[in-house]
Amino acid sequence: MSKEKIEIIEDIYKENNIIADKVNKELNEKHVYCINVMGSPGAGKTSSLVQIIKRLTGSTAYVLEGDIESDIDTILLRKLGVEAIQINTGGACHLDSLVIENAIKGFNFKENGVLFIENIGNLVCPAEFIIGEHIKMLISSVAEGSDKPYKYPLAFEKADLILLNKADLKPYIEFDYDFYIQGIKALNKDATVFEVSAKTGDGFDEVVKWLNIKRSTKN
Amino acid sequence: MSKEKIEIIEDIYKENNIIADKVNKELNEKHVYCINVMGSPGAGKTSSLVQIIKRLTGSTAYVLEGDIESDIDTILLRKLGVEAIQINTGGACHLDSLVIENAIKGFNFKENGVLFIENIGNLVCPAEFIIGEHIKMLISSVAEGSDKPYKYPLAFEKADLILLNKADLKPYIEFDYDFYIQGIKALNKDATVFEVSAKTGDGFDEVVKWLNIKRSTKN
Repeated sequence: MSKEKIEIIEDIYKENNIIADKVNKELNEKHVYCINVMGSPGAGKTSSLVQIIKRLTGSTAYVLEGDIESDIDTILLRKLGVEAIQINTGGACHLDSLVIENAIKGFNFKENGVLFIENIGNLVCPAEFIIGEHIKMLISSVAEGSDKPYKYPLAFEKADLILLNKADLKPYIEFDYDFYIQGIKALNKDATVFEVSAKTGDGFDEVVKWLNIKRSTKN
Repeated sequence: MSKEKIEIIEDIYKENNIIADKVNKELNEKHVYCINVMGSPGAGKTSSLVQIIKRLTGSTAYVLEGDIESDIDTILLRKLGVEAIQINTGGACHLDSLVIENAIKGFNFKENGVLFIENIGNLVCPAEFIIGEHIKMLISSVAEGSDKPYKYPLAFEKADLILLNKADLKPYIEFDYDFYIQGIKALNKDATVFEVSAKTGDGFDEVVKWLNIKRSTKN
């Protein structure tokens, strides 16, 4: 790659990080906790959010729903009474902080709120960009196979919280749990991993307990 | 985005397309048919290739295995006697034609061969780049949900052949087949869709029959 192209890419990251810090500061002033939700297409990001949000007692949830096209998930969330705003990137493979800075203007945040930013379904590009979040939550699924931490290391390395979703499918799939965990631990000793099923709700009580502790000890 | 950045992106596409045409010409001279294999992480790209390759009688198969990191799939393919070369992008979210132009130098192609290029597991970025292929084959899976054509339209729009994999999981998953097909047809009237299971092998006889007809009528 030419020196000129490398400089422009570095410039994009630098600009992104400055705005991400601004977004994070604004959310802190409003006492809003922000979670960047990443995962492959179809890992179960939205259905996991539904399970988490219905267990979040005493806090208002807000969702920025990132998609290349469509508003299927936003419609679903609004039907459940969740304040959700659609972001359509029209092709772009990840969300960046400039998009988030503009989108959050659409919310009238209450104190002690939780903002979930559902990133584009992509196990590669979103992990490269901070967007103002306090933590990154990665949704993976048993259906994707146990080798994913080895093949897509950055997403697993950057995640604070990892949900292994679709645990209800385990009887029908070959999934080597030890190999999966070993791959994560080699990249990221600090990540917390929960096995969940967004279909049955199993495991989400523990996830929300963990999130509540994390939020209360933020500062 | 600045005018300068847009020009550089256009420049990247233009350079890529010129080299892709060169690669395609070179493969034609060697009578090698090239399939760009796309799909989400864990859709079953490699296991589908295994099912296809063992049914390809009278042709030698070659695989360029694209991954960000690891060589898990290349080791698997070589154990099965398949000529496979690993490409590690070290972070890049798609393969481009320059990478392919260099990588195919590693093969000593026989006439009537079939080259499968397994792209990075990503339902977004690979669809934007031609890499010398004759057709694009998209591997999707019932575990990803039936809304994927609506959320990731470009990959479905560009595909010539779409495999709906993991059909063996259908009894345990809510998957709206009509909604899925309707989404594809709205984007791409010409795509052929086969329901398959790379686990059981179901459906792959028809896939290979289709591929053989496509190859024989190429010119």
